[in-house]
Amino acid sequence: MINKLLINEMKERVFVANLALPEAGLVKLTWGNVSEINREAGLIVIKPSGVPYQTMKAQDMVVTDLNGDVLEEGMKPSSDLATHVELYKAFKEINSVVHTHSKHAVMWAQAGREIPAYGTTHADTFYGVVPCTRQLTSEEVTSAYEFETGKVIIETFKDGALDPLAVPGILVYGHGPFTWGQTPKKAVENSIVLDEIAEMACVTEAVNEAVRPIPQYLLDKHFFRKHGTNAYYGQI
Amino acid sequence: MINKLLINEMKERVFVANLALPEAGLVKLTWGNVSEINREAGLIVIKPSGVPYQTMKAQDMVVTDLNGDVLEEGMKPSSDLATHVELYKAFKEINSVVHTHSKHAVMWAQAGREIPAYGTTHADTFYGVVPCTRQLTSEEVTSAYEFETGKVIIETFKDGALDPLAVPGILVYGHGPFTWGQTPKKAVENSIVLDEIAEMACVTEAVNEAVRPIPQYLLDKHFFRKHGTNAYYGQI
Amino acid sequence: MINKLLINEMKERVFVANLALPEAGLVKLTWGNVSEINREAGLIVIKPSGVPYQTMKAQDMVVTDLNGDVLEEGMKPSSDLATHVELYKAFKEINSVVHTHSKHAVMWAQAGREIPAYGTTHADTFYGVVPCTRQLTSEEVTSAYEFETGKVIIETFKDGALDPLAVPGILVYGHGPFTWGQTPKKAVENSIVLDEIAEMACVTEAVNEAVRPIPQYLLDKHFFRKHGTNAYYGQI
Amino acid sequence: MINKLLINEMKERVFVANLALPEAGLVKLTWGNVSEINREAGLIVIKPSGVPYQTMKAQDMVVTDLNGDVLEEGMKPSSDLATHVELYKAFKEINSVVHTHSKHAVMWAQAGREIPAYGTTHADTFYGVVPCTRQLTSEEVTSAYEFETGKVIIETFKDGALDPLAVPGILVYGHGPFTWGQTPKKAVENSIVLDEIAEMACVTEAVNEAVRPIPQYLLDKHFFRKHGTNAYYGQI
Repeated sequence: MINKLLINEMKERVFVANLALPEAGLVKLTWGNVSEINREAGLIVIKPSGVPYQTMKAQDMVVTDLNGDVLEEGMKPSSDLATHVELYKAFKEINSVVHTHSKHAVMWAQAGREIPAYGTTHADTFYGVVPCTRQLTSEEVTSAYEFETGKVIIETFKDGALDPLAVPGILVYGHGPFTWGQTPKKAVENSIVLDEIAEMACVTEAVNEAVRPIPQYLLDKHFFRKHGTNAYYGQI
Repeated sequence: MINKLLINEMKERVFVANLALPEAGLVKLTWGNVSEINREAGLIVIKPSGVPYQTMKAQDMVVTDLNGDVLEEGMKPSSDLATHVELYKAFKEINSVVHTHSKHAVMWAQAGREIPAYGTTHADTFYGVVPCTRQLTSEEVTSAYEFETGKVIIETFKDGALDPLAVPGILVYGHGPFTWGQTPKKAVENSIVLDEIAEMACVTEAVNEAVRPIPQYLLDKHFFRKHGTNAYYGQI
Repeated sequence: MINKLLINEMKERVFVANLALPEAGLVKLTWGNVSEINREAGLIVIKPSGVPYQTMKAQDMVVTDLNGDVLEEGMKPSSDLATHVELYKAFKEINSVVHTHSKHAVMWAQAGREIPAYGTTHADTFYGVVPCTRQLTSEEVTSAYEFETGKVIIETFKDGALDPLAVPGILVYGHGPFTWGQTPKKAVENSIVLDEIAEMACVTEAVNEAVRPIPQYLLDKHFFRKHGTNAYYGQI
Repeated sequence: MINKLLINEMKERVFVANLALPEAGLVKLTWGNVSEINREAGLIVIKPSGVPYQTMKAQDMVVTDLNGDVLEEGMKPSSDLATHVELYKAFKEINSVVHTHSKHAVMWAQAGREIPAYGTTHADTFYGVVPCTRQLTSEEVTSAYEFETGKVIIETFKDGALDPLAVPGILVYGHGPFTWGQTPKKAVENSIVLDEIAEMACVTEAVNEAVRPIPQYLLDKHFFRKHGTNAYYGQI
């Protein structure tokens, strides 16, 4: 039997996190989706597909098992669900995934470029470049598109030996950003940061064509000021 | 005798759709207009010319026949009415037309360039480039400007063998965007998408001068994920 | 004796027009000022200098004679008053002047370039380029700066044989825009249009480096669709 | 014994100034901090580290002595406190410091360029370029990062023989802006101005690649119109 209380709490968190996207200016119309996983309970909760934010309710969030099979009657899940499922299977440390078409991150995804770490705003959240996947092949797109989108993200992290908590997001070539985190709140914040640093980076290059990424020691300093056992930012 | 109930419903929809334009940041001052057609009833309803959005009421919407001849006493219709009429005559599948001077679409229209399909945000709504008309000739502008604006849009679609529902909008050279759809709500959404992808596209080119449009198979995938008999996005 | 009723009406209009500037996003902090003239009554009303918009009241507007000499006890007038006075003396057709540091117009003023007429949004309000003054000389700046700012605007219009109602604004080199009109409402609208077309123009050039201004016949069509005896835009 | 009334007044001013940053669009999430010093009372009040603006209260502001040692039990101070302390020690004329990651100022900081004085909006607040520090060395970053950030700002002002009240802000290379002033309100205003002129400057260069800074006499005119004994802007 499914724990109703647990599900309702997950639905409420996922609902609030989804609403945070248009509030932060990251989502127009029905673009974007947030999910949360509870591995112990074997549950994923995700935004329903194509439902307007204005009328969406917490109870509309869709509940699936860890393979993305819907457990309750009701709405269809986000069409990007299969991507979320693959990310949860590969990245055991994360509990929430966010996908948006936020404009500045999309600009870099469309340009097919990783975002260099040009400053400490970037380093506070992303420990190194924000990677960009290779382009999906015709076969990948026509066979199981959303599944393969997850796979190419995982491939990029494997090839680059990247840690999903140290680099909590990526650009999918020609498409847009996915971010994640240990909570829906944190995953949404990472989407906010990603769009902001994407915007900053493209103008930085316009202002100085010869700009270089910040040195490794500054990247280390800012990232570990906020993350890991020696972090000293915040109230903890 | 004209069906008053039908007209009031059309006026309400057109009114709401017009107000959605400044809310979405697509229209300043009195720029922009939305119309709706009911071919069976022989009616077009369109925004009055130059009326401020703050004081405009649903009853101010102007009712015309299918040739654009005003049927009720009251306000003058939008000066762009003749363009709307020509589009309705040529594009039988559409029931609403929107014109704005939304800034990013205008930038491309002024540049005289079609917008390449650089990403899936574009492909979700526009199946291929957003076309740009040729420049109107002196004779066309001085004789029947708004009528010829409609004609050059139709010419562009005919020359490119384009489907108005697969490419629900265009840039008029040196002027700005027109979009359309099967409902006023959808036509307005297409204006929102058009301005967003216009903005994304110009920065995409700045970030990567050698950027290429997405491959045809990705364009196919995203467009037909949302449109046609095999669509699987949304709740239907 | 000064007509109190007339003054209060002028103050109210000037106050409302000044508040419209930050609402339209054209003014930050205390930058920007609007004035109105009544030539018959021999009165100019202008925003006080450096007063925050949040606490400013209609009664704070400053009343001067046609030479800019203050007529009532109270606040000091905007430091740009002398520029307004010179414009009123030279341009008899105008009844209101607006000055802002709206960012996109300032970008062109700082670049020292006139804004080409790249599209119909421009042509609807400005009949030709938005001119940019020459740089003021050291002597002009150090002697009577605000007076000379007015003089160089007038010089630019004289040299270019420009009509202030056909070209209702200008960029002062290295400084920013001044616009005007027959009413404060119209002068503010012209500031809104100027900033919008300034933004559009710079990206237009980025999207197409070889872009050309729209042809004269399209400029004529759009301007005279809204202005003069053959205008047919709006409800009049 | 510490004067409770004085501390509460400082906390309230610092709290209000911190809230002004997200309101002005200069701060996202928990980025940014404002402090105030009272040298006579031997007190500094600063924002707590990493506390969300939505739930932050005036009483959460952290009180320290002039060396940055916390005087009350409660929250941890901003991790940038050591930078503020160094600035207060070196710049005796200032009573408040603001740090943000406002996007346009960060773009220039990441580009490692000082901002040229391209116009009067700049000259009204900054008497000359907005300087950019050199890059911190690995040793500086790893030893006492925030302290050294303060030191490199002071070094830049010393090397350039700059007056902190004439140039009330700086860009830290690869990081972002610090501004200051005689009050928290003024220091925040200087952050608003800095971000605005940073945005204007980068587009100015795009519009005119050969743009030159304004001449010294115009810089003098605008700065001294608002500052010093001959100032005539405002109501004083």
